[in-house]
Amino acid sequence: MSYLNKITSPTLLLDRNICEANLIKMKSKADKLGLRLIPHFKTPQSITIGKWAQDLGLDEITVSSIKMAQYMSRMEWWNIHIAFPFNIRETEALNKLSTSVKISIQIVNTESISFLAKNLVNNVSFFIEIDAGYGRTGVRSDDLDSIDSILKIASENPLLNFKGFYIHPGHSYYTSVEDVYMETLIAMKSLKDLYIHRFPGLVIRCGDTPGSSIIHEFGAIDELGPGNFIFYDLMQVQIGSCNREDIAVALAVPIVDINRDTKKILVHGGGVHLSKDFLIESDGIKHYGEVVMLNDSGWILPTTRSFVEKVSQEHGTIHATDELLKQVNVGDLIGILPVHSCMTAGCMRGYLSTEGEWIDHAEGESFNT
Amino acid sequence: MSYLNKITSPTLLLDRNICEANLIKMKSKADKLGLRLIPHFKTPQSITIGKWAQDLGLDEITVSSIKMAQYMSRMEWWNIHIAFPFNIRETEALNKLSTSVKISIQIVNTESISFLAKNLVNNVSFFIEIDAGYGRTGVRSDDLDSIDSILKIASENPLLNFKGFYIHPGHSYYTSVEDVYMETLIAMKSLKDLYIHRFPGLVIRCGDTPGSSIIHEFGAIDELGPGNFIFYDLMQVQIGSCNREDIAVALAVPIVDINRDTKKILVHGGGVHLSKDFLIESDGIKHYGEVVMLNDSGWILPTTRSFVEKVSQEHGTIHATDELLKQVNVGDLIGILPVHSCMTAGCMRGYLSTEGEWIDHAEGESFNT
Repeated sequence: MSYLNKITSPTLLLDRNICEANLIKMKSKADKLGLRLIPHFKTPQSITIGKWAQDLGLDEITVSSIKMAQYMSRMEWWNIHIAFPFNIRETEALNKLSTSVKISIQIVNTESISFLAKNLVNNVSFFIEIDAGYGRTGVRSDDLDSIDSILKIASENPLLNFKGFYIHPGHSYYTSVEDVYMETLIAMKSLKDLYIHRFPGLVIRCGDTPGSSIIHEFGAIDELGPGNFIFYDLMQVQIGSCNREDIAVALAVPIVDINRDTKKILVHGGGVHLSKDFLIESDGIKHYGEVVMLNDSGWILPTTRSFVEKVSQEHGTIHATDELLKQVNVGDLIGILPVHSCMTAGCMRGYLSTEGEWIDHAEGESFNT
Repeated sequence: MSYLNKITSPTLLLDRNICEANLIKMKSKADKLGLRLIPHFKTPQSITIGKWAQDLGLDEITVSSIKMAQYMSRMEWWNIHIAFPFNIRETEALNKLSTSVKISIQIVNTESISFLAKNLVNNVSFFIEIDAGYGRTGVRSDDLDSIDSILKIASENPLLNFKGFYIHPGHSYYTSVEDVYMETLIAMKSLKDLYIHRFPGLVIRCGDTPGSSIIHEFGAIDELGPGNFIFYDLMQVQIGSCNREDIAVALAVPIVDINRDTKKILVHGGGVHLSKDFLIESDGIKHYGEVVMLNDSGWILPTTRSFVEKVSQEHGTIHATDELLKQVNVGDLIGILPVHSCMTAGCMRGYLSTEGEWIDHAEGESFNT
C-alpha cells in the first residue's frame, strides 16, 4: 500500500534518500576539507534521523535548547552542543542533564558565566559566541575585554572548560555568502592566533547552511555546525545552497476546493502547518511554498511552477497553472515544498517517510499515538 | 510562590480574569442583540477554557479541524461545528466521531456533498459556506446554481441536515470592518429571504472577531462564531476590536543578553514560540510583539513601548526603551504580547495561568508531563 493512503490531513513527508544524500554530501565535504561536522538538529529534531547521522560516523550534534538536548540525549552522543546563549534560569536542568551527558554551551556575557561558575555541579564545556556582524547575538570579535573577562571568570571554576569560539554568520541569508565569509574568516583567524597559545585545543566552530554549502575555503575554521542542510528548503534554493531536488521534506495537503475560473486551489494546509515564513521570487511573486506532485515513491517537480499565495491559520490558497489544474480533483493530495523547513518541521512535529514509516520529532511525543 | 518561579523557558501566560471578561462581554453583547454565540475554539483549543465558556451558558463551539473536534469532544457540547470546507479524506473520522457527538460541517462544492451523501453513516448537519468577497473559500452568494445543486444532492440523503449559511468576513482584518459588514449583511439577507421558506429553521452564522467586536447591527445574522476575542492580540488592537488591556495571553521569555549600548535585549523566544506573524505600527515600526512587565499577579504595560524587532527560530531581539533597559537584567523574565494569539497558542500548545495553574491545549497532550 502506498504511504499516500495513510494520509487524511496535512502530513509532513520525508524522503529518506534525499535526506541521507544531504548528510553524506556535507560529511564528505567536511572530511575532504579536514573539518569536523557537528550537524544542528534544530532542523530535524529526530532520534531516527540522529541514527542516520551516526551511521555516517557523526558522533556529536548541535541543538538549540536544553529541552532539545534532553530529547536527543535518549541516544548516545560523544557531546551535545547547545548553540544558544546560555539561559541561566535553566542551570538546574543543565546540572541534571550533565550528570549523564557531555554538554557544551555558549556564553555571550560575564553575567551568565559568573552565575554558572557559582552554580555548576558537573563538568560543562563552553564556547564564546562571536557576533558575526549582524548583531543578533554574541561578543564582538574585537571586544577582547569581554572575552578576557569571560575567560577569567571561567578559569576560577575547574568544572568550566573553554572549547573555543562559535560563530553563526546568519546574515549570509540576506547578503552575499562569499562576502560574509571573507569577513568571518579574517575575524576568526585573528581570534585563533590570539588565543591558541593559551588554549592549544581551541577550536573555531561555524554554523550556517549557506556557508557550509557554498564556501570551499574555511581558513581558521575547524568545525561546521549547519542544520538546515539536512532537509534544505526553498529559501536555501534562493540563496544558492542547493537545488529544489535536494529538498527532503514536503507537506502533503488535501485539496478541499478548486475554482477553475480563478485558478485557485484551496488546501487544508496553512500557517500552523507551513509557518508564515514567505519568499519573494525574482519576478516579485510572494509565496509560502511551491507545489510538487506526489506519487507512490515521493514527489516530482511539475514543469510549470505553482505557489501557495496565501495562508491563514488552517487554509492555504494555491494559484495554479493550467498544467496543475488539469491534474487535480477535490479530495486529492498534493505536496508543498516549504519555504523554511526548520519552521515547518517545528509546526508539524513528526514525519511520514515516503516509505510509509512514521518518524519522530522532539516536539511530537504524542505523534501518531 | 509566584507563578513566575516556575518559569525557566518560554512559557505562554494566560490571565484568566481577562479571558473570562472577554467571554462575558461577547456573551452579553450577543444576548442583548438576540444572537447565539458559538465561540471558535481554534484560538484557545482548551478543555479548561471550554469549561469557562460552559459556565457562562455557552453550549456549542466551533473548531477548524476534525482533530480539534475530537479533542474538544472530551467534554459534552450540544453541537461541535467544524468551520472548514469539509475534507472528504476525513469522512471515516467524521463517521466515527458522529456516532457519539453532534457535528456540523461546512460545504463549499458539490464534489464534497456528493461524496458525503454516499459515505455518511450518521446524521450530520451542514452549513453552506459563502465567500465573503475576498475569495479565500466558499460559494459566491449570487451563485444560486451551486447552492441549489448542493442542496439537491443533500436532500437525497436524510442523514444530511441543512442548517444554513456560514460566512467569515476575514477581510475585515484588512479593510474597514463597517464597509465589509454592510456588504455582508446585504448578501446574507438576500440569501435568507430566498431560502427561509424552504428551510424555516435556517440560520445565518457569521464568524470573525473584528465584526463581532465592533459591529452593533447584525441584520439577518442569527449567530456569531468569533474565536480570537477569547484572547485578543495586537493585531486586533490595531483593527480596533479591543484595547491592549484586553489581551489575555503574554509569552514569558527569559533574557539571555543585554546590550546597553545598542539598546538590544536578546531573549529566548522566537518564531517557534510567537510565530512569524508581524505588525506594522502607524509610525512604520515592524514588530513581532510588544513588551510587558511581569509581576506576581500578571503583567502591566510600561509607559514607553518596546517591541520585538527581529525573530529567528529561537531568538528574539527587543529594541528597548531607556525605561525598559533600567528595569532588566540577564536572567530576568519579561512578557511579550503576541501579534496573533491563535498562532502563538498553536506554537506553545499549553498555558500557565497567572494563578500558577497549567492549562491544556489540544496540541500539547504531552505538555507538562
